[in-house]
Amino acid sequence: METISRTKIVDLCRSKEFGTIVNVKGWVRTRRGNKQVNFIALNDGSTINNMQIVVDLAQFEEDMLKSITTGACISVNGILTESQGKGQSVEIQAKEIEIYGSADPQTYPLQKKGHSMEFLREIAHLRPRTNTFGAVFRMRHNMAIAIHKFFHDRGFFYFHTPIITASDCEGAGQMFQVTTMNLYDLKKDEKGSINYDNDFFGKQASLTVSGQLEAELAAMALGAVYTFGPTFRAENSNTPRHLAEFWMIEPEVAFNEIGENMQLAEEFIKYCVQWALDNCKDDLQFLNDMFDKGLIERLQSVVATEFKRLTYTEGIKILENAMSSGHNFEFPVYWGVDLAAEHERYLVEEYFKRPVILTDYPKEIKSFYMKQNDDGKTVRAMDVLFPKIGEIIGGSQREENYDKLVTRAKEMGVPDKDIWWYLDTRRFGTAPHSGFGLGFERLLLFVTGMTNIRDVIPFPRTPKNAEF
Amino acid sequence: METISRTKIVDLCRSKEFGTIVNVKGWVRTRRGNKQVNFIALNDGSTINNMQIVVDLAQFEEDMLKSITTGACISVNGILTESQGKGQSVEIQAKEIEIYGSADPQTYPLQKKGHSMEFLREIAHLRPRTNTFGAVFRMRHNMAIAIHKFFHDRGFFYFHTPIITASDCEGAGQMFQVTTMNLYDLKKDEKGSINYDNDFFGKQASLTVSGQLEAELAAMALGAVYTFGPTFRAENSNTPRHLAEFWMIEPEVAFNEIGENMQLAEEFIKYCVQWALDNCKDDLQFLNDMFDKGLIERLQSVVATEFKRLTYTEGIKILENAMSSGHNFEFPVYWGVDLAAEHERYLVEEYFKRPVILTDYPKEIKSFYMKQNDDGKTVRAMDVLFPKIGEIIGGSQREENYDKLVTRAKEMGVPDKDIWWYLDTRRFGTAPHSGFGLGFERLLLFVTGMTNIRDVIPFPRTPKNAEF
Repeated sequence: METISRTKIVDLCRSKEFGTIVNVKGWVRTRRGNKQVNFIALNDGSTINNMQIVVDLAQFEEDMLKSITTGACISVNGILTESQGKGQSVEIQAKEIEIYGSADPQTYPLQKKGHSMEFLREIAHLRPRTNTFGAVFRMRHNMAIAIHKFFHDRGFFYFHTPIITASDCEGAGQMFQVTTMNLYDLKKDEKGSINYDNDFFGKQASLTVSGQLEAELAAMALGAVYTFGPTFRAENSNTPRHLAEFWMIEPEVAFNEIGENMQLAEEFIKYCVQWALDNCKDDLQFLNDMFDKGLIERLQSVVATEFKRLTYTEGIKILENAMSSGHNFEFPVYWGVDLAAEHERYLVEEYFKRPVILTDYPKEIKSFYMKQNDDGKTVRAMDVLFPKIGEIIGGSQREENYDKLVTRAKEMGVPDKDIWWYLDTRRFGTAPHSGFGLGFERLLLFVTGMTNIRDVIPFPRTPKNAEF
Repeated sequence: METISRTKIVDLCRSKEFGTIVNVKGWVRTRRGNKQVNFIALNDGSTINNMQIVVDLAQFEEDMLKSITTGACISVNGILTESQGKGQSVEIQAKEIEIYGSADPQTYPLQKKGHSMEFLREIAHLRPRTNTFGAVFRMRHNMAIAIHKFFHDRGFFYFHTPIITASDCEGAGQMFQVTTMNLYDLKKDEKGSINYDNDFFGKQASLTVSGQLEAELAAMALGAVYTFGPTFRAENSNTPRHLAEFWMIEPEVAFNEIGENMQLAEEFIKYCVQWALDNCKDDLQFLNDMFDKGLIERLQSVVATEFKRLTYTEGIKILENAMSSGHNFEFPVYWGVDLAAEHERYLVEEYFKRPVILTDYPKEIKSFYMKQNDDGKTVRAMDVLFPKIGEIIGGSQREENYDKLVTRAKEMGVPDKDIWWYLDTRRFGTAPHSGFGLGFERLLLFVTGMTNIRDVIPFPRTPKNAEF
C-alpha cells in the first residue's frame, strides 16, 4: 500500500480539498451496503463524527473485506469526495485498504448499539470506543484544559500538593492507608502497637483527602495557586455520586475575602461551561440528543444567569416558609441543620431557578479552618449549588488569626502537633485568604449530563472495584 | 485605610502610570534605610522581582514600622513612581500601610539569605517564600502549562489513568500497598493467607507505577492521549535523583511508529524548554546567576540542536572504541549491558555534544510490551538522553501482535490473567502505536538547574519523610 501521511477525521471533516488522495486510519463502527458498494463508518477518536468510506466491491478482494467488521482497525487510501448522502459532508472513495487488526464478531463485545451502562463499566477498557464515552472523555479533556487556561490566564500557579500524607487534618473522610510493611510480619512495640519505624515513611501514612492546607501554604508565598490532582475517600458508599478516587481542583488566593472568592468561583465555573459550549459542540449535541434533552439549554442558562447569593440563615427561612406553605421535605429544616440535597434543589430549581451561592453557615457543621464571623455562630463558608448536581463547589475564607484558629482546631479535635506547619502561616506574615474546591467529576456530570459518576472517569474506583 | 483594588507586583513592574495611587500587598523581604527614609522590598509571589516601597518615616508611627520585619505581610497604598535607584524601574511612595501579619524576628526561620538547601527542605512549608523556590515553583507551573498546551494544540486528549490499581504489570518497581483493613485484626483464610475480601477493593491494591498500559487502551479508542499524574515507587533509595512520589507525563499515539515517536519526543521537549526560555525569563536569570552559570546557554543549545539518533548497538561500539582509546569507565561495556549514567553522559556530553536518542535496545533489558524487531534480539525502545540529566524520556513502539505479546509476557513472568484487558486491545482492532514517559521532575531538574530532585517538587516524599 502506498505510504500517504495520515489525516485525522476531525480535520478531514472540515476539508474542502475534494479530489485529493488522503490516508485515514481508524476503527470500523459499521459496514453496510449492497452487492456493488459497501459503506464503512470509520472512527479514529479525534471526533464523534465517523468518516464514510465508500468501497467499490469490484476493486477489492472478498476475503479482505470479510475482515472489515465492527471493531476492526484499518488504514484506507482514497479520494476525498463531497458526500451525496445524509449526515456527512465528505466521504472517501477507497483505493487501497490495509487491515491492521480484525475483531472477531463472535467475541468482540461492542457489537452494534444499546449496551447498558452497567455492562460498559465492566469493559471499561473498551468503552472509550463507544460514541458516548468518546464524547465524555473528550469533554473531560476539554474541561481540564479550560481549568488550566482559566487559572494560568489569571496569574495563578499550578501547585502539586502531596498525594501521600502523614497528616489527617481536613477530617474530610475516611482515609486509605499506604504501607510497605509486610502484613504477615508486622512488628509491634512492647505495648502491642504497630511499630511504624519499619514502614516506608517511618510513620503511618495515608492518601490525601484534600490538598487545601498545603495549597494555603503556597498561596501565602506565591499569592494565587490552584491544585488539580487526585484525592481519595475510603467511604464504603456504593452510590452514583461517590468515588473512592476522584480529581479535585482547589484554588487558594492570598488577600481574597469571601466576596472575591464567590466572584472567582462564579467566573471560573461559567468559564468552564462556556468552554464546553464553544469547544465540544458535536459531543454535547450527541449527549443532548441521546441522554438529556435539556443539557445544552441548561449549560447556556448557567452562563447567562447571575448566581444568587444569600446566607444560610436566609436560605433556612425560605425553606421554613416553603414548609409552612405546605411543601414536604423528607428531612427536617431548622437553623443549624446540614442541608440535604432536597433542600438545596428546592432553593436552586424551584425557588430561585438558577445557581445559588449560600454563605455564612453555622460553624458546627463546617471545618475548623474557616474564618469565624463576629456573631460567634457562623463561619465564612460558601457552597455553590447547581441544578441537578447540588453542591458543586465548597469553599471559604480561611481563619487567618492564629489564636482563633488554634482555639477552634482544639474544639474540633484537631491536634496542634499535626498542623504545626499550617499554624506557622498564621504565626509568620498571616493575611486574609480564601479558596474553594471543585470536584472535577461533579463538573463533568453537569456538563455531560451523565447521571452516574462512574461514567465520567475512565476507570472508576469504588468498593470492591479496582479492575484495569 | 482607603480601599483601593490591589495590583500584583508583576503588573506594577510593567506599569508606566506614574503618579497614580495603587495598592500593593505582599511579604516583606527586607527593610533598610536611614533616619528619614526606609526602603521595604516587598514580594507577592507573582514574580521574583520585589517592589520597593519608599517610606517617609515622618509620616508613619514608629510602633507600626517596628512590625515591618522580614516575613511580615503588609498592604500599602502609595504613589507609583519612576525609580531613581538601581535594580528596579518603579517604586511606590507609601501613603498608608496596614500590617496584616507580623513575623517575629526571633522565631521566623527565613531571616536573610544563605540557608542551606537541606535546612530549607525541613521547612518546606515556608520555602516557597524564598527567591529560589519561588522561581522553581513558578517554573514548575509553567512547564505544566506548556505540556498541556503542546498536547492540546496537537489534538491529544488528557486522560486520567487510575492511581490505585490492582495490577502490577509494568514491573517498574516496588509498589506501595493501599488498604483499609484493620492491621490489628487481619483476617486470614484456612491456608494462612490474608483474606482480601475484607479490604476496600476486595483484593490487594497498590499505587500505580505508570499509567502507560491504561493510556494504551485510550489511544486505541481516542487516537492520541497523554497522562499527567502522580506515580509511585517504594524503592528505599535515598539519592538526589529518587522520589517515592513523582509526576509523570505519558503520551500514547495510535498509528505512530518508532520514528514518529522520536519526532514527537524531540518536538515535545524542545517546546517545553523554549516555553521556559520565553516565559520564565526573570526566574531563569536568577537561577542561572545563583546556581548554574551555564543554565540558560544549555537550554538554548538544546532547542537549537537536532537530537542525534542512533541504535544501542552503534552506541555500544562508540563506547567500546572509547575504551580502546584509553577512556576509563567504572562499569563494563558490552552488547547486552544496561547503560550506566557514565556511558550515557559520555555519548551526550563528550562524543556527540548534544541530546541523543538511543533506539533498538536488547529485549532482555526492556519491558515485555515493546515491539520486537525482526532480528529476534532487539526491541523498538527509545531513550532520550540529556546533558547533566541522563535519561529524560523512555519510550517505545508497542508490540501490537497478540501472539508475540502473549509469548513475551509469559517469558518475562507477567501473568495473562493480570493483563487480559491489555491483551484485548491486540485481540480487537489492534494497530501500531507508540508512546513514551517523561518524569516531570527530571524535566524540572533540567530547566531549573537544580541538582536535587527534592528541590523541584513542593513536598518531596522519600524514605522516612512524609511531613506536611
